[in-house]
Amino acid sequence: MLTSKKIRAAIIGASGYSGAELLRLLSTRDDVEITRVVAGTSAGKKVAELYPVFAGTVDLQYEEFRAEKSENADIAFVALPSGESMKVVPGLLASVGRVIDLGGDFRLLSPELYTQYYKHEHVAQHLLSEAVYGLPELNSQAIADAKLIANPGCYPTSVILALLPALKSGLIKTEHIVVNSLSGVSGAGRSASVELSFTEVNENIKAYKIGNHQHIPEIQTVLEKASGSTISLSFVPHLVPITRGIYTTIHASLDAAVTEAEIRHLYEAFYREAPFVRIRKEIPQIKDVARTNFCDIGMTLLTPTKQIVLTSVIDNLVKGAAGQAVQNMNIMFGLKQTKGLL
Amino acid sequence: MLTSKKIRAAIIGASGYSGAELLRLLSTRDDVEITRVVAGTSAGKKVAELYPVFAGTVDLQYEEFRAEKSENADIAFVALPSGESMKVVPGLLASVGRVIDLGGDFRLLSPELYTQYYKHEHVAQHLLSEAVYGLPELNSQAIADAKLIANPGCYPTSVILALLPALKSGLIKTEHIVVNSLSGVSGAGRSASVELSFTEVNENIKAYKIGNHQHIPEIQTVLEKASGSTISLSFVPHLVPITRGIYTTIHASLDAAVTEAEIRHLYEAFYREAPFVRIRKEIPQIKDVARTNFCDIGMTLLTPTKQIVLTSVIDNLVKGAAGQAVQNMNIMFGLKQTKGLL
Amino acid sequence: MLTSKKIRAAIIGASGYSGAELLRLLSTRDDVEITRVVAGTSAGKKVAELYPVFAGTVDLQYEEFRAEKSENADIAFVALPSGESMKVVPGLLASVGRVIDLGGDFRLLSPELYTQYYKHEHVAQHLLSEAVYGLPELNSQAIADAKLIANPGCYPTSVILALLPALKSGLIKTEHIVVNSLSGVSGAGRSASVELSFTEVNENIKAYKIGNHQHIPEIQTVLEKASGSTISLSFVPHLVPITRGIYTTIHASLDAAVTEAEIRHLYEAFYREAPFVRIRKEIPQIKDVARTNFCDIGMTLLTPTKQIVLTSVIDNLVKGAAGQAVQNMNIMFGLKQTKGLL
Amino acid sequence: MLTSKKIRAAIIGASGYSGAELLRLLSTRDDVEITRVVAGTSAGKKVAELYPVFAGTVDLQYEEFRAEKSENADIAFVALPSGESMKVVPGLLASVGRVIDLGGDFRLLSPELYTQYYKHEHVAQHLLSEAVYGLPELNSQAIADAKLIANPGCYPTSVILALLPALKSGLIKTEHIVVNSLSGVSGAGRSASVELSFTEVNENIKAYKIGNHQHIPEIQTVLEKASGSTISLSFVPHLVPITRGIYTTIHASLDAAVTEAEIRHLYEAFYREAPFVRIRKEIPQIKDVARTNFCDIGMTLLTPTKQIVLTSVIDNLVKGAAGQAVQNMNIMFGLKQTKGLL
Repeated sequence: MLTSKKIRAAIIGASGYSGAELLRLLSTRDDVEITRVVAGTSAGKKVAELYPVFAGTVDLQYEEFRAEKSENADIAFVALPSGESMKVVPGLLASVGRVIDLGGDFRLLSPELYTQYYKHEHVAQHLLSEAVYGLPELNSQAIADAKLIANPGCYPTSVILALLPALKSGLIKTEHIVVNSLSGVSGAGRSASVELSFTEVNENIKAYKIGNHQHIPEIQTVLEKASGSTISLSFVPHLVPITRGIYTTIHASLDAAVTEAEIRHLYEAFYREAPFVRIRKEIPQIKDVARTNFCDIGMTLLTPTKQIVLTSVIDNLVKGAAGQAVQNMNIMFGLKQTKGLL
Repeated sequence: MLTSKKIRAAIIGASGYSGAELLRLLSTRDDVEITRVVAGTSAGKKVAELYPVFAGTVDLQYEEFRAEKSENADIAFVALPSGESMKVVPGLLASVGRVIDLGGDFRLLSPELYTQYYKHEHVAQHLLSEAVYGLPELNSQAIADAKLIANPGCYPTSVILALLPALKSGLIKTEHIVVNSLSGVSGAGRSASVELSFTEVNENIKAYKIGNHQHIPEIQTVLEKASGSTISLSFVPHLVPITRGIYTTIHASLDAAVTEAEIRHLYEAFYREAPFVRIRKEIPQIKDVARTNFCDIGMTLLTPTKQIVLTSVIDNLVKGAAGQAVQNMNIMFGLKQTKGLL
Repeated sequence: MLTSKKIRAAIIGASGYSGAELLRLLSTRDDVEITRVVAGTSAGKKVAELYPVFAGTVDLQYEEFRAEKSENADIAFVALPSGESMKVVPGLLASVGRVIDLGGDFRLLSPELYTQYYKHEHVAQHLLSEAVYGLPELNSQAIADAKLIANPGCYPTSVILALLPALKSGLIKTEHIVVNSLSGVSGAGRSASVELSFTEVNENIKAYKIGNHQHIPEIQTVLEKASGSTISLSFVPHLVPITRGIYTTIHASLDAAVTEAEIRHLYEAFYREAPFVRIRKEIPQIKDVARTNFCDIGMTLLTPTKQIVLTSVIDNLVKGAAGQAVQNMNIMFGLKQTKGLL
Repeated sequence: MLTSKKIRAAIIGASGYSGAELLRLLSTRDDVEITRVVAGTSAGKKVAELYPVFAGTVDLQYEEFRAEKSENADIAFVALPSGESMKVVPGLLASVGRVIDLGGDFRLLSPELYTQYYKHEHVAQHLLSEAVYGLPELNSQAIADAKLIANPGCYPTSVILALLPALKSGLIKTEHIVVNSLSGVSGAGRSASVELSFTEVNENIKAYKIGNHQHIPEIQTVLEKASGSTISLSFVPHLVPITRGIYTTIHASLDAAVTEAEIRHLYEAFYREAPFVRIRKEIPQIKDVARTNFCDIGMTLLTPTKQIVLTSVIDNLVKGAAGQAVQNMNIMFGLKQTKGLL
């Protein structure tokens, strides 16, 4: 029976922007069936009431989360705030079997580091070592076999993809790495706050959480594990008045005598099998990747200061969240990883 | 003593955008002294904490409102939400003597109409007939003598100034007047809401409160009183992704055989003594008046449909709020009405 | 042979925003093959040079237009500026057979009206009566049989869809119809001008071409033909700082004693078979239709003034241009009209 | 006679954004008389035709530049593109005596460096050593005595003010200084280009001119001269979708064991006499300085990486151009440097 072959997916935390983006990506696929959408405060409402763009195309109603409910699903996407996710993931692993968590609860290996940056205790520490960091360009084999995916953060996706080839090849020094990232406002979620109001954000820019953003240990952990080296990296996030997109600009010191063309060649080789990473000759722009699952990477060698400038762009809601989650789902179910994403 | 001649002004509700705009306009004047700034939820904070733009130039601290406090001021500006204002204005009239209310509590003559549109009872009805509608281009003599000024709403300012000459001269019919207005987001105030968040407002437009906006009876009341006729007018406000500004486009049916040049001449004559109304040959734009107290008005005669299209633009926080309030203050204190506003 | 069944489509004028949107919509379809993309000034460049978003997904090179070239295509989309289109359409009709013109050259029946509004002579007048106005909600049968489709303008699409049911049913009077429309900047095309520069457009709004916009006769012609009545309508377009989207607000006088619910019911019935028109209970917003082929329509009855306010929203590049063109193509080739558009 | 004491100022290149900003700042002063406004392509037009905001307040007409014209002025502001300025400055120095050039022609000491970055020969090389770099916080005494002021670039103003105290005090290492700057679009001037059109810039970000921006040698030259050290600095500018403002984020390595409080104290002491530099406890935002002549500087010490992150914000058209020029004029004429700027 054909319909029995559909992947049945539940979305827990479906009323936020990542949840809505999951709906956009999954609802048009004929090989996926969304079994239920859970959203505490919006329970009882139709999806199209919150997001009228889905009127006529997504006929689902938000439900309250009930842990005891036996999930009739093959996979659960969890798009809850950090701290909430870890409360429901153990149950979902038991009932559903496969979980992709889009939040930060399972991205760090150390519960101490988690508490330091997320400001609360971790209540599902036994799962930290089991979770697979869901960056397909780094971990596709482990993702294929995983039960629990920690879907990467938006900033880390743009930073790690840009730095991985250089760090793994020893091209750059492991210290004095400087990362500036600019994020669109949807990265802050769908919430009521004066700080995120149009009047405050429009015609404005601000750096924030300098030195204490929760994505710092995530970037550090993943890069150190992948490269086998201790690295010294400074990261400053900024809020800019766009809805979607992350722009990351990285300065690193070259540790080898190479040309820009050689660096580009190295990057192209590194990502040869990665359908969503594009090594660009021109400096990439947000609009080149908006509403796509691509990460575009550019590079410029500054001869006078022996620095390499890496620029990378993603859509924070797609490659930085829901798109990457779908890419992970594709891998977990043995599908082509680009399915539904091109 | 020179300082004794300064106008001492208190600002009640100084933490919102209109309050901050009052501070911008008044703090640089050497003939005005701001005696205190009141803001309930921000009491105890410095002005520059909420609005760092004032760091080093405005050294004031928000205070809580205390009715019993004897005000040492010559005038009080009240920039509270509608419904709050009417609770404090009677006391301020007693202690200070002169009050300019930037909210909607004293703009309508009828308490029934007030309750219908503002959804609560009026608790200071005895002041409704005493309040002077503070549109200087209409009421300058009454403003000079007033104790209580009802500072006009932002939409009404743009609509009334555009329609007054045509209605008073009988140029247009009193029915089938259609008004479309577009407002920047600062008009909704400084508040936390998903609806006003950048992500929701950016790249979006919406009409709202069609047929039930509280500025409808204000426009109607003022125009009918000024023209002596009953008018039939439809008003639709829209929210657009700009911070400041109102764009109003009005269609009305001509009731006389006139040329566009004659209409323009009539408008120019009508506003000859009004320093802040500019009759324009080109279609006005928001940027022509942004951060100024001007209202620019354009007009195009549509011969085929015998319609006149009037376009008017203001900055909602200046001519639509704080600037007009200062213009009123100038008139009340016998100053040139442009003082501090050009 | 499976590939022989693909629809082979040529895009003439593929470097502008409508052309790029056609590429976005057609390039992912496995039943369509884009045979060539023509763009005079960009000839020789890869599509991905102008639009890097297509890097890795659209591997086409812009060519110069050569009339003599025998087109190996089943359909040609022409997205040239008005005035250019009529020069190439006759040849394309001969060589390709089926043409969808996204510009204004074949939307009016009268060459005099064309010259009055487009400011140049029509050089292919013999095709004016042959062209079918490509609004599927009005003309689907004629579209199915057409050789030449005049794809509707962006403003007209939003205006006509909102007014058709009311006019055809006699619900509203045919005079005193007032239309205000707000357009995103992509509607002005991809061009170099100070007026369209970010600094001029951002934080600004302006009405323009009041009374002489070329879409006025298009709206008038289509509505009068469809309703069989002479109508008197005023239209004012505005430029607003968003990239995509049209917001149309219409005031009309009711000609019958009806309730809002009855009007809504009439509209729902009228569009029952139209998959891209959604009659909405809430006031529609641009974001509800952005990047979709939907036209959402809302309605509010103003009892005091016996007016109906109709609001309609579309994405100007999709339902207002490329999406509607694809919808027309689907109909012409006997496909489901939603194919590739949901 | 009182009027004879007015400063008579000519503005050469008055039709661009910096020129218009000069008009905004100078036209309201009663101690300054604008003698003429020169603008080649707009000659013959009224200022208010290009900038209707000045209707009724600035009644001046653009003139063509004529070198032979004996200037009846005390000072000339030159706001021409780089390359044009150097052609007229020698003549203006002779006829007017004092010149403030807002472009880049006189900011570098070396004609070779000029040619390398500006891509044309310098035709007034004899003035390079005579010109005073007009950063009042660095050079106020020399400015007071100068005939020719090279008004600093927008990026350099934000970068140099942030780095000066740290470099002059030896607080930071002179190598591995990384500067990321984000600029509003008005910094690119008032020009017609697809790249600067709203549709391209909105919802987009891009880095540009990595490693070859003409402000790199300016920053380097000024900082090395002021600190007496050779420095190694990388600078990446970005274009962001705001109209006004520059956001600069700097990473540098500490060369001393200091606390954040000590660094802040050092900065406060350094700028004690500078009325337009504010050392901030919070991270500064663009809106804190928009339309002001302030430069706000924040600092965060990153203990793990021994880096100091400096953030600085200015309005590119005010402190980054016209405001700083007026500040320089004030100093040159013995006025309080804040006159007309607070």
